[in-house]
Amino acid sequence: MSAKRTPIILLLFMFLTITSSHKYKGNKKLYKPCKNLVLFFHDVIYNGKNAANATSAIVGAPQWANRTILASQFHFGNIVVFDDPITLDNNFHSPSIGRAQGQYIYDTKNTFTAWLAFSFVLNSTDYQGSIQFIGADPIMIKTRDISVVGGTGDFFMHRGVATIMTDAFEGEVYFRLRVDIKFYECW
Amino acid sequence: MSAKRTPIILLLFMFLTITSSHKYKGNKKLYKPCKNLVLFFHDVIYNGKNAANATSAIVGAPQWANRTILASQFHFGNIVVFDDPITLDNNFHSPSIGRAQGQYIYDTKNTFTAWLAFSFVLNSTDYQGSIQFIGADPIMIKTRDISVVGGTGDFFMHRGVATIMTDAFEGEVYFRLRVDIKFYECW
Amino acid sequence: MSAKRTPIILLLFMFLTITSSHKYKGNKKLYKPCKNLVLFFHDVIYNGKNAANATSAIVGAPQWANRTILASQFHFGNIVVFDDPITLDNNFHSPSIGRAQGQYIYDTKNTFTAWLAFSFVLNSTDYQGSIQFIGADPIMIKTRDISVVGGTGDFFMHRGVATIMTDAFEGEVYFRLRVDIKFYECW
Repeated sequence: MSAKRTPIILLLFMFLTITSSHKYKGNKKLYKPCKNLVLFFHDVIYNGKNAANATSAIVGAPQWANRTILASQFHFGNIVVFDDPITLDNNFHSPSIGRAQGQYIYDTKNTFTAWLAFSFVLNSTDYQGSIQFIGADPIMIKTRDISVVGGTGDFFMHRGVATIMTDAFEGEVYFRLRVDIKFYECW
Repeated sequence: MSAKRTPIILLLFMFLTITSSHKYKGNKKLYKPCKNLVLFFHDVIYNGKNAANATSAIVGAPQWANRTILASQFHFGNIVVFDDPITLDNNFHSPSIGRAQGQYIYDTKNTFTAWLAFSFVLNSTDYQGSIQFIGADPIMIKTRDISVVGGTGDFFMHRGVATIMTDAFEGEVYFRLRVDIKFYECW
Repeated sequence: MSAKRTPIILLLFMFLTITSSHKYKGNKKLYKPCKNLVLFFHDVIYNGKNAANATSAIVGAPQWANRTILASQFHFGNIVVFDDPITLDNNFHSPSIGRAQGQYIYDTKNTFTAWLAFSFVLNSTDYQGSIQFIGADPIMIKTRDISVVGGTGDFFMHRGVATIMTDAFEGEVYFRLRVDIKFYECW
């Protein structure tokens, strides 16, 4: 009896060791997403001339700036509200499967850094529901991680991490983000 | 031995099938809330004349708008900061059990859609603590789901989904929201 | 047999009672953090004269206020964007181990209350990653709890509660917050 139990105890011990390294080293390589989505969204900033096509607008700025053109000093302090189309590929003219809605803020004085808080509202045959995102976005770095803090509908109670990449950037008017959403808590 | 094991394997297989349908179809009907709260909050928007009674004010707007009257084009871009009383029923004059504090943004050019980020700060004999909310709010739809992303005090570490209904709407000055908060992670 | 089982049933019953008090009374004293961090961040508000040193600026305000000086009426409605240095102790001149980036809003008309939504972006030998925070901040109370709603890198998928204390406050230009971050979900 005792001889048979030993291996089980060893296995348990190994399991506890792995669990503990999870908890205290944040080694995310040990985790596989329970769901994965790659989506693109397209932001056309209002510049005083493109009201018909714009999907976002500056709505707050520091005292030294205005709300038509992004502020100097790396756009520091600009708050932009957006309602951007979401597509399955990187083509601006592809059918939209939902909207990215929320705000971004430029928040560094000496480089381009943004802070994001927004939702994906998906409405397609494959996905119905919303996903909530928050995080810092150091734009000049190739890939940036933000947090997926909640969801509704098909994404009920989901949490995870989203990796963002600037897929295109055209002057101060258009950019496109690639969002690789990895859910680790799916329900 | 083998004959006895078969049913267990079958059961395991059935269990895995059910688990997998949880994870990939987001079938929230399988879950029951561990806690449920229905509350109302009341928003009186500052319009240039009601400083004494107003509980919210426009603090950001696009270049074409101002901060006294909600912007045209479906209010696109308006950021509103609020500190609204929370009540147990739909009567504005009922005793307040806390405050709804945070911001909402109007973020669509061709219909009324908002984006919400706020906290409930509850301070009553029954509840002491805060609840954090984020989500898109397509105002014209009867019931909308947003995410409950965290809590403190009596709502320590809670997560869930809140269903929002516009319970009253009077011109551009007053609205009342019914919030049905369902916690699925309670601690 | 029956005599032997009784204590187990009693134990089970006690366990269920404790679990239930977890769920319905939010008794956080029963939980120990799986990780704990105490950090400070320093906010220097732009006042029209300190552009070189300022780490934050008013970017939104109600119609009756401006964006150079904090609004009267307890600063109601001011939105401030910040990019503040984070230090391990309360010395403004200590080496920065990261940046606190996001926004705060003053949101009460009759006392000083703020609402916070921001990220810690840590970049030191000890910590690489980001932490996301949301919550109400009743500034005049000595310690306030806000929610930690997500994380990336070393804080992958973490959640918890952060206790905030105003560690220093100098007029309308400088304040320092002590943030005691307790993670209860660590991965």
